[in-house]
Amino acid sequence: MAEFFDVLSLPEAGRIITENWPRPAVKKVGLEEALGRTLAAEVIAGEDLPPFPRSTVDGYAVLASDVHGASETIPAFLSLVGEIAMGFPPGIEITSGQCAWIPTGGMLPAGADAVVMVEYTEGLDQETVLVTRPVAVGENVIRTGEDCRMGEQVLPAGHALRPQDIGVLAALGITEIPVFSRLRCGVISTGDEVVTVDATPAMGQVRDVNSYVLGAALKRRGVDTRYYGVVADDFIRLQEKIAAALAENDLVVMSGGSSVGDRDLSLEVLLSFPESRLLFHGLSIKPGKPTLAVRIGSQLVLGLPGHPVSALMVLEVLLEPVLPEGLRGTCTAVLTDNVASQAGRDDFVRVKVDYSSGVAKAIPVHGKAGLIRVMSEANGFIHIPHQKQGLSKGETVIVRLF
Amino acid sequence: MAEFFDVLSLPEAGRIITENWPRPAVKKVGLEEALGRTLAAEVIAGEDLPPFPRSTVDGYAVLASDVHGASETIPAFLSLVGEIAMGFPPGIEITSGQCAWIPTGGMLPAGADAVVMVEYTEGLDQETVLVTRPVAVGENVIRTGEDCRMGEQVLPAGHALRPQDIGVLAALGITEIPVFSRLRCGVISTGDEVVTVDATPAMGQVRDVNSYVLGAALKRRGVDTRYYGVVADDFIRLQEKIAAALAENDLVVMSGGSSVGDRDLSLEVLLSFPESRLLFHGLSIKPGKPTLAVRIGSQLVLGLPGHPVSALMVLEVLLEPVLPEGLRGTCTAVLTDNVASQAGRDDFVRVKVDYSSGVAKAIPVHGKAGLIRVMSEANGFIHIPHQKQGLSKGETVIVRLF
Repeated sequence: MAEFFDVLSLPEAGRIITENWPRPAVKKVGLEEALGRTLAAEVIAGEDLPPFPRSTVDGYAVLASDVHGASETIPAFLSLVGEIAMGFPPGIEITSGQCAWIPTGGMLPAGADAVVMVEYTEGLDQETVLVTRPVAVGENVIRTGEDCRMGEQVLPAGHALRPQDIGVLAALGITEIPVFSRLRCGVISTGDEVVTVDATPAMGQVRDVNSYVLGAALKRRGVDTRYYGVVADDFIRLQEKIAAALAENDLVVMSGGSSVGDRDLSLEVLLSFPESRLLFHGLSIKPGKPTLAVRIGSQLVLGLPGHPVSALMVLEVLLEPVLPEGLRGTCTAVLTDNVASQAGRDDFVRVKVDYSSGVAKAIPVHGKAGLIRVMSEANGFIHIPHQKQGLSKGETVIVRLF
Repeated sequence: MAEFFDVLSLPEAGRIITENWPRPAVKKVGLEEALGRTLAAEVIAGEDLPPFPRSTVDGYAVLASDVHGASETIPAFLSLVGEIAMGFPPGIEITSGQCAWIPTGGMLPAGADAVVMVEYTEGLDQETVLVTRPVAVGENVIRTGEDCRMGEQVLPAGHALRPQDIGVLAALGITEIPVFSRLRCGVISTGDEVVTVDATPAMGQVRDVNSYVLGAALKRRGVDTRYYGVVADDFIRLQEKIAAALAENDLVVMSGGSSVGDRDLSLEVLLSFPESRLLFHGLSIKPGKPTLAVRIGSQLVLGLPGHPVSALMVLEVLLEPVLPEGLRGTCTAVLTDNVASQAGRDDFVRVKVDYSSGVAKAIPVHGKAGLIRVMSEANGFIHIPHQKQGLSKGETVIVRLF
C-alpha cells in the first residue's frame, strides 16, 4: 500500500477534473441536429401540452353520467349530434343525452367529459347510438395540460438529448435549442517505440493504437477530436507538439510517456508552459496509476498510461463526471468468478457481459495489460471501490459498458 | 384475443424485416471515421501481434532458471550486460548468469525468457544486479503472437466498431476499413391534425413530433435521415410525398395514418406503386398493433403508429434485428411493480431504470399512449413475450435502454 500514499483517490480526481474542465460556448441548434447534444439551459414549457382535451381512442364523446350503469342488456341510448373532424375544433357542444363521433387524437367537444370506445357501442340508426358499457369521467381522454403545464420545467440544463427528449421539444414548438458547443480535443501519442499506423514497424517498434482508441472514445461522447500523431520522447519535439495542440483545442489528451517515478518527460514539458499548474500525478486506481492532469491557462491536459487498454479505461472513468453518457453506458450483471482486489485503491476489471442465458452475466476477461485484443473482447468493466477487497462469484455488479 | 388472429408475431416480423432490408453499398473508411460503422467483411490479422516478445514491466530480462529460489536472504547475482532501448532491437543476447535492463514495452533480448520487476532487484554495482524473487518462464512478457496470430480472424463481418475495435485495427496497420455505407431513410409524418413544428397549432391541431423522434432514433443507429415533413390524409399528396422520399432514399419510415380496420389510406397509397407488395399489416405487440411494412421494388417502407411513444418503441423493436446497437442498449434490472400483460401478444412496457440504490431497479412508467413527456421520463422498456401473462414485482428483467 505504501506506493499509493502520494497518489490521489478517484473521487478526488473526479472533483479536480470537474473543476478544471473547459467551459464550452453555448450555441443554438435545430431539432434535426439536437441528438446527443447537451442542453445549456433548462427547457420550460411555453404552453399547455396538449393545448386541448384529446381522445385517446376512436369512439363517442359523451357525458359519463349519461352512460352510468350501461350494459349489454340495458344499454344507454344517446342521440348522435355530429362528428369531430381531425385537426379542427369540434364546433358542437354535447348536452345530456347526446354524443358525437370522435377519432383518436380528436378534440373533445364542450360538454363531453369522457369517450366510449367504438367497441362498446352500436349504431342503432343514423341518429341513435347504443352504449353497452359505462365510462368514468375523464376516461379515454388526455386533459388539457396533462402532458405538461405552461411554465413547468420539462428538461433540466445539462441533459443530453435523446430521441424522446427531442420529441418533447418538437411538441412544444421549441425549434432553436440552446446547447453546449462540442469541445475540441487534441490527441497525442508519445513514445520512442511508437510509429504511425501506416508504417511497417521495425523490430522493437509498435504502431500507434492509442490515438485512434482515445480519439474514438472522445468522439463517442460528443467531443471533436483532432489527431496530432506520434512524438518521440524528446523535450523540444514534445513541447512543439503540445503547443500546436493547445493552440487549436480546448483540451489535450496524451498517452504514453507518463510514469510515476524516475524522470517524467511529459510532466517536465507540460510544466515548462507559462501558467501551467500540476493538478495531480498518480491515481489510486488499477489500471491507471501513472495518470496526470495539468492545467495550462484555461486549458486542461490529461496524460494517460501507454497501454491502450489502460488508457481507454482511465479516459472513460475520468470523463464520466464531466461527460456522462447516461444509462446507456451502464448495466448490472452477475459476476461469474471471484475477482481479487487490493484494499486502498479503486480497481477496474474488464468483463464481457453475456446475455445468452437470459440473465446478464459479467465474465471477467483476463489478459496482460499490454495485450490489445482483450480490449475488444471485453465490452465493459466493473469498479471495485477502494474499501473492498475483491468481489465474489455470484455477486451482482454494475458494469460500465464501452 | 380474436383481434390478434390476423396479425403477425414479432419474431415473424423480425424475419420479414431482415429479409427485405435494403442492402447497403460497401465503402472504405479510415480509422478516424470508423467509429460506429459496421464491418462489411471479417478482419484477418496480416501479422503476429505483437511481432516480437515484449516486457510488460520495467525491470531486468533474465533466464528464469537463473533466479530460481532467489529471496531477500539469498538473492541471485546476475551480471548486467546491457540496456534495451525502446523502439530498437536489443542488439544483445543473454546467457546464463546475465541480465539486461528492459523498460515496459521493450523487446525481450534473445536468450532471456522472463522479466524481473525492478522492485525485486537491487543494483549492487555498475555490473551486478541482485534479484530477490524468482520468476516463472514467460513471466512479465507478452509472447510473439500472444495478442493474435497471423491469419486469425480478429473481428467478424457485421460487427459495429467501438473504440476498442478501432484500436485492434490500428495495431494491425489496417487503415482502410471495409464498412457498409450508411443507409438513407426518408421520414414522413401523416395526419390532418398535424402541423409543422414552427407553426402555432390551431384548436384541434398538434405539432409534428414523430418526424424528429423517429429521425433521431434512426440517426442514433447510423442511418442518414432526411425529413419530408407533414402530409395530410389525402391520396394524391401522400402519393407524391412517398414518391419523393423513395426517389432519394433506401427506405422510408412514415407514422400516423396506419390503423387496422376501416379504410387505411397509407396502405392504399403504398400499394398503388408499381412492384409494391404488402409484407405485413398489424403486429401482435403492444404498443404497435397498427404497424405495416410494404416492399416497393428493392425499397422498404415502414408504417408506424401515430402516437410518438408507440412509434418510437416499435421502430426500436423493428430495427433491433437489422441494426443492432449491441449491449449499449440493454441492461438488467429488478422490477418494482407487477406488470399485467395479455397472453398471445408481445407487450412492451416503458420503465425508468434507477440505479440510486446501488441495484438497478426498473420502475414502470405509466401514462396514456398519447402523452409525450412520459417518453422522456422513461429511459427504457421491457419486453413481455407472448407466452407470459405479465411479470411480477421483484423479477429480474432485461431492459432495452433508449
